[in-house]
Amino acid sequence: MKTVDRLIDNTLQTKNPSVIGLDPDMEKIPACYKACVNSGHPLKAAANVIVEFNCDLIDTIAALVPAVKPQMAFYEQYGSYGMAAFEKTAAYAKSKGLVVIEDAKRNDIGNTARAYADGHLGCVALPDGTYVPSLDADFLTVTPFLGSESLQPFIDACVRYDKGLFVLIRTSNESSGEIQNAVSEDGVTISHTLARYVAGKADTLVGVHGYSSIGAVVGATHPEEAGSLRSIMPKSYFLVPGYGAQGGGAKDILPCFNTDGLGAVVNSSRGILYTHMSDHERTKCSRQEYLSSVQEAVKRMQEEIYSALKEQYHDMVY
Amino acid sequence: MKTVDRLIDNTLQTKNPSVIGLDPDMEKIPACYKACVNSGHPLKAAANVIVEFNCDLIDTIAALVPAVKPQMAFYEQYGSYGMAAFEKTAAYAKSKGLVVIEDAKRNDIGNTARAYADGHLGCVALPDGTYVPSLDADFLTVTPFLGSESLQPFIDACVRYDKGLFVLIRTSNESSGEIQNAVSEDGVTISHTLARYVAGKADTLVGVHGYSSIGAVVGATHPEEAGSLRSIMPKSYFLVPGYGAQGGGAKDILPCFNTDGLGAVVNSSRGILYTHMSDHERTKCSRQEYLSSVQEAVKRMQEEIYSALKEQYHDMVY
Repeated sequence: MKTVDRLIDNTLQTKNPSVIGLDPDMEKIPACYKACVNSGHPLKAAANVIVEFNCDLIDTIAALVPAVKPQMAFYEQYGSYGMAAFEKTAAYAKSKGLVVIEDAKRNDIGNTARAYADGHLGCVALPDGTYVPSLDADFLTVTPFLGSESLQPFIDACVRYDKGLFVLIRTSNESSGEIQNAVSEDGVTISHTLARYVAGKADTLVGVHGYSSIGAVVGATHPEEAGSLRSIMPKSYFLVPGYGAQGGGAKDILPCFNTDGLGAVVNSSRGILYTHMSDHERTKCSRQEYLSSVQEAVKRMQEEIYSALKEQYHDMVY
Repeated sequence: MKTVDRLIDNTLQTKNPSVIGLDPDMEKIPACYKACVNSGHPLKAAANVIVEFNCDLIDTIAALVPAVKPQMAFYEQYGSYGMAAFEKTAAYAKSKGLVVIEDAKRNDIGNTARAYADGHLGCVALPDGTYVPSLDADFLTVTPFLGSESLQPFIDACVRYDKGLFVLIRTSNESSGEIQNAVSEDGVTISHTLARYVAGKADTLVGVHGYSSIGAVVGATHPEEAGSLRSIMPKSYFLVPGYGAQGGGAKDILPCFNTDGLGAVVNSSRGILYTHMSDHERTKCSRQEYLSSVQEAVKRMQEEIYSALKEQYHDMVY
């Protein structure tokens, strides 16, 4: 059993290859969560709101999705209090059986990269020479701008601690091609060079379902490229951003999957948390009203993706 | 006065364009710091060691260098306790007049990038609708893998809060060329495309000394490229890693400077903190012995760089 197997088992059980981004944007969280306990430090008050909001979301979606993807920016912006909110969120999600995909897009080299990898995925050194887990995410997103030697320490950590990675290869945003479509020394695009690298490393962490914990971020907004990246990295799991709010539809994400209906998880954050109710509605709704609408949005996304996969891939395994 | 002016004023005052990386690597911190207070949570014990170590370092070097560069990986690996150690370190460094260059290599898009930028450089939203500062670094390093739209929110934050950036353009590590030397749509390398972008944005934040707070990371290990990047970005400050431990010498960093002896700060982390005493010596030394050796190493680096600059640039302004 590898970490990717837990992601796949959860996907099979929920019949849902979509994950929900836990992006607690204070300006968009429903007002009913913000009348929270005053707790001394103002940043702690924000962190408390985030934890309450997230725990309610996790309770609402835990039986419906395989994983959550907390976006670290929305936590660490509140400093140490925000990091504590992340830790509580991740621990609560795990206690409910969810896989935690930490979207932090970290990158560095040498012992600095090792510090990130150990801190987010593994164990860290204590003053007395012992080692303990710290942030302990299941998967981490990493950025490859510093080249292959910046990825190796993260891959080493995945092997050592049985964790997973999603390496940014082709992102969903408009300006993504500026660097990702540049032509590398190999005469192919940066995305393809990175895909070959990831494919080479993926073999080291293949689980019982035949997929690897060394995965890739491939945006829903590039369906034409997703197919070729899929064929370069047949065993890597894809984390697919850009669905919904960023313009990708159910048809667009099909090339990210293999014909067994596995190989990818599609993320939605704003599309689930903030766009199914208007800004005005979120100032007035009750928690129950808000959470019901989240649950509906999650179910709708599952139906869209699941039925599109069923129609396309007749040898789907779920 | 812009943030970059404080960096320059400190450089003029100390006659030192070098900065010290505060990279508290638990396995390398002298043993005399690790016999610290036991404080309940094991990660908190690590955080306490980091704060004590850093405060001693800051006291030792505050009058000798213009700025410190804490590497976020070594803090956040200890989760919320580590972030608190970062906050205390940054606040203490500022209280001693040092500029804080936070090396966190962040990157994302849209409101996520804005959350990073606001959290690290500006103000964050509270539940009651007000805004307060959070991590409040002076400069932040950012990675450009997602393209120009991922840099704009950080530039916006610098304008809004009078802060600074160092955009990764040509890093010091061996595999840096894999992506940074790829050929972009413009027919030049990614590094040059990024340099043009940064140069275009630099004009918005030029201070009284004629330099911009929108800077670039250019490694000491690429002296041949540093000159051309310098001429593309005449107003941008360069943060120069790779000195010492990574192989760059005083001659190598000269092309990163303008002829006034300004335009760059050279970083050393391991070269100052961990390599002037052997691993064995660090298990036995007193704090005073360790700090004296740090002070010597800082002075030696200042002399190397300052005399190399003086020899090369006869119109140096300090």
